[in-house]
Amino acid sequence: MKNSVDAENYSKIYKQQLRIIEKRLAKLLVGKEPESLYKPCDYILQAGGKRLRPFLVLISAKASSGNYNQVYNAALAVEILHNFTLVHDDIMDNSMMRRGRATLHNKYDLSTAILAGDSLIALAYQNLFKDSKDDAKKIFATFTQGVVEVCEGQSYDKEFELRKSVSIPEYKKMIYKKTAALTEMCCSIGAQIAGADHVRLKALKNYGKNLGMAFQIHDDLLDITAKQHEFGKMIGSDLIEGKKTYLFLRALEKAKGLDKKAFLKVIDRKGIKQNEVLKYKELYFKLGVVQDAEREIVKYTKLALENLTAIKNKEAREIMNWLANYLTYRNK
Amino acid sequence: MKNSVDAENYSKIYKQQLRIIEKRLAKLLVGKEPESLYKPCDYILQAGGKRLRPFLVLISAKASSGNYNQVYNAALAVEILHNFTLVHDDIMDNSMMRRGRATLHNKYDLSTAILAGDSLIALAYQNLFKDSKDDAKKIFATFTQGVVEVCEGQSYDKEFELRKSVSIPEYKKMIYKKTAALTEMCCSIGAQIAGADHVRLKALKNYGKNLGMAFQIHDDLLDITAKQHEFGKMIGSDLIEGKKTYLFLRALEKAKGLDKKAFLKVIDRKGIKQNEVLKYKELYFKLGVVQDAEREIVKYTKLALENLTAIKNKEAREIMNWLANYLTYRNK
Repeated sequence: MKNSVDAENYSKIYKQQLRIIEKRLAKLLVGKEPESLYKPCDYILQAGGKRLRPFLVLISAKASSGNYNQVYNAALAVEILHNFTLVHDDIMDNSMMRRGRATLHNKYDLSTAILAGDSLIALAYQNLFKDSKDDAKKIFATFTQGVVEVCEGQSYDKEFELRKSVSIPEYKKMIYKKTAALTEMCCSIGAQIAGADHVRLKALKNYGKNLGMAFQIHDDLLDITAKQHEFGKMIGSDLIEGKKTYLFLRALEKAKGLDKKAFLKVIDRKGIKQNEVLKYKELYFKLGVVQDAEREIVKYTKLALENLTAIKNKEAREIMNWLANYLTYRNK
Repeated sequence: MKNSVDAENYSKIYKQQLRIIEKRLAKLLVGKEPESLYKPCDYILQAGGKRLRPFLVLISAKASSGNYNQVYNAALAVEILHNFTLVHDDIMDNSMMRRGRATLHNKYDLSTAILAGDSLIALAYQNLFKDSKDDAKKIFATFTQGVVEVCEGQSYDKEFELRKSVSIPEYKKMIYKKTAALTEMCCSIGAQIAGADHVRLKALKNYGKNLGMAFQIHDDLLDITAKQHEFGKMIGSDLIEGKKTYLFLRALEKAKGLDKKAFLKVIDRKGIKQNEVLKYKELYFKLGVVQDAEREIVKYTKLALENLTAIKNKEAREIMNWLANYLTYRNK
């Protein structure tokens, strides 16, 4: 970042686009029936959030000599798809809170949440249609590949919860599918609609993928290091749920003696109790896995940024640079 | 039906196509990973069944001067989509058995069933791609509209379970969305891929829609009149679940005095016990709602058949005629 004036400017552009996305999301389901289906969909779509994925679509279009107006519907599509994954993942993970509010199955019920998630997939496709022309087939294929990956990723994630041992490469394959394949897809969709050439498309996909990897490891990290009042969900919930996060797997690699026993116990018991979170947090710091995670985040952020040399549009390039740094230093 | 030789011939063609569909379904997920995701998907896809929906795609292509080979992947797509609805509906309805086997969430667990259903949607789209060319956008839009309708239909179905009163027109709107919109979509997809003109497309959509209406009311009927050993699920499960089926709503309209009270009690208690099924079955017969349902089935079957005059291809037309009659007299 050249200076903080630029950063302020890019942050302003991001926030401006966020407002447009929020407005469009708010209008999306007005008056749609049955209410028993679309009110819950609306509830989740209007829960706020970083809206990273739609922004990646927008900025990738701009980076491909296109413009935001070409891809607003596609941007909505990826955000809707992302929200589908949140709704169904929250059921599978027994999560009660999300972004400081009750999760959908908690506020309504299981059936409503399953069905709302399902129809979000269809809604996502419907929005994607609006921004695709002759290239429709290619774009739908890219989008659908994203849906496949995200399901496979979630499946590995659930499988890993039950497995005794998971390697770091296995973990990385899982988060690629669960998170990075979707951020990669966002960039790909934006670039394709804007008619990017092969070089630009590849660079943007790589940017999206590595940003997604950094983002997910950061998410694992925040589960431990975030401040409760900023976070919107319970600190340590990955540990409570027995998730095989980067920090957990790295701790398992590094720990010895009693510390090792403590982590093996988490696997045996398929999670910990809420009052044990602090103890494990201290172990994470003691073993240096918090720093290890930070190093990984920086590594993937750098890998993302390397691709920006291929982007000719100065504003897009600088916004993408700003975005990667912004995400690396986020605290929620 | 001219004579039973023709019927036998059409039945043979249907069974022949069924075998091809089964073979293709069996090959679909071989070797795919993660197994924790695709084994459950495979389990449900290979559970057999009538394969009515893919057959509608095939026969609609033929009725539009196309051929089966153009649409096998699209036929698979609608069957995969149908199986997604079965998996998620079975969760929502607490159904333990389907086609004589454990339902997916019963055999595996809730998370696995949710996720398998989700990925079946994506798999359906992937198969649809394979059979669509320049017309991709139109075909995806038709398909996606089908997904939207089926979610809305299921939402109404669940909503009706909780409501004190539901009218027969409301019920029909619900089954249109839940079942008939999808059979309509199957015919539409087959016709569109084969390049049907406007008249043929409309006739085939109408055929599919009315067939679907007849099919769903028949399903409601079979819940009461089927023989347990042929049925594959528990007789009376709609009553046990408190479903507002055609028979139930019609009984509620017609019943008086103590009989009326008995049906109102089902609503209050949100269902009945298993040992009460026989009593309600007798009430249905006493009130004549079984015959009412049969009349509705015949009515919709006739409405379906009226469209066949627009179909020039003799074999397709006669198979579609046979199919409608075959479904009307099925016992499972």
